[in-house]
Amino acid sequence: MNTVAETPGEHPVTDMKRCIEDCLRCSRVCFSMAMNHCLEQGGPHVAPPHFRLMIICSDLCRVTADAMLANFVLHEELCRACSRVCEECAASCRDLDGMEECVDACEHCSKSCAAMLRR
Amino acid sequence: MNTVAETPGEHPVTDMKRCIEDCLRCSRVCFSMAMNHCLEQGGPHVAPPHFRLMIICSDLCRVTADAMLANFVLHEELCRACSRVCEECAASCRDLDGMEECVDACEHCSKSCAAMLRR
Amino acid sequence: MNTVAETPGEHPVTDMKRCIEDCLRCSRVCFSMAMNHCLEQGGPHVAPPHFRLMIICSDLCRVTADAMLANFVLHEELCRACSRVCEECAASCRDLDGMEECVDACEHCSKSCAAMLRR
Amino acid sequence: MNTVAETPGEHPVTDMKRCIEDCLRCSRVCFSMAMNHCLEQGGPHVAPPHFRLMIICSDLCRVTADAMLANFVLHEELCRACSRVCEECAASCRDLDGMEECVDACEHCSKSCAAMLRR
Repeated sequence: MNTVAETPGEHPVTDMKRCIEDCLRCSRVCFSMAMNHCLEQGGPHVAPPHFRLMIICSDLCRVTADAMLANFVLHEELCRACSRVCEECAASCRDLDGMEECVDACEHCSKSCAAMLRR
Repeated sequence: MNTVAETPGEHPVTDMKRCIEDCLRCSRVCFSMAMNHCLEQGGPHVAPPHFRLMIICSDLCRVTADAMLANFVLHEELCRACSRVCEECAASCRDLDGMEECVDACEHCSKSCAAMLRR
Repeated sequence: MNTVAETPGEHPVTDMKRCIEDCLRCSRVCFSMAMNHCLEQGGPHVAPPHFRLMIICSDLCRVTADAMLANFVLHEELCRACSRVCEECAASCRDLDGMEECVDACEHCSKSCAAMLRR
Repeated sequence: MNTVAETPGEHPVTDMKRCIEDCLRCSRVCFSMAMNHCLEQGGPHVAPPHFRLMIICSDLCRVTADAMLANFVLHEELCRACSRVCEECAASCRDLDGMEECVDACEHCSKSCAAMLRR
């Protein structure tokens, strides 16, 4: 039996709450690692395509979280873009030293956002 | 003859510049009208679905502009979401008094973002 | 004996970590309550001076948290402004029904930011 | 005779409009140069203290512009912080090749924000 409030055609409330948490964590981890670990390491950690991914991923995750926090009806448009960008950011981080936390945050966020899309 | 620098499969530089301008203008107009005209008018101007559209539309337009300013490779993911949200925001503003500038900014931004998508 | 890493003239690391958490919580609570409780209640909850405080407070708290997450040397400039804006936001929320969580978040954030300033 | 609408103790409307434009320009120039010129140049252009200044300066300029666009009563708190951060960002950019546009944007924004403070 489902103990979670659920309206037909909508997402269970707990799924959205988890997605908000995953987006906020990913936004914070990407920004913090870009501005600390990546800048301090230099070299491939500040290669333009990688660094741009980190910063735009962080910004998009935050707006996606805000859309869900605001009960915005079109949150799926943002979740779709966010899921894709997080997936690419995870892939870019996987090739670099010391980015495990960022890979994990991006992977979780990508999956949570994908789960918000209407099947 | 085309005088604009263009790489096969990419967008003409002038199209992206125009899209950046349209996104920045839309972000500013939505935020400013929400925080001034809408709050001062009250009533339907601060109905939750309308007001949320104005705020999230403004935020998404800004991140979409940032993605293009940063030469971010996945900017199309953001342009797709931004085009859709702007379209809805224009529709929501059309029903309300004194929102002509916002309707115009959202319509232009929606079209510019749609034009950035690969056909 | 102090077990926390501390450099003369700098803040204990734990103080900054707590301030980051307080800023991120305040940013989220202000935005979420503005976009849900305030818009749904209407009346004095969407009075322009109150609502503007909620939105700008949320934005400033986020940038202040980002400055500290990025180990930005001039974070005190942001903490000073943030402490003052949060204090005013707490005062504005105190007069309205159902804003206890926001009063609490703003008060904590205001104090944490004030504690980051060099005496 | 003063042809600009002015309330005793407040700023002339034209001063605030100029300050908003300067903040928005500075936010855009700092972000765009960080994500393009600085990342592409590497070396001292991505030294952590310089790069953090560029990113936080861009974010703070945007929130300061938003505060004025929203007619936020406490905009001086943000203008004070913004003026100081822009001043430091201009100084940091002055030492690096090809950053003239950023030096100019930061200097103008710093002065405009300082002019918003009550004497």
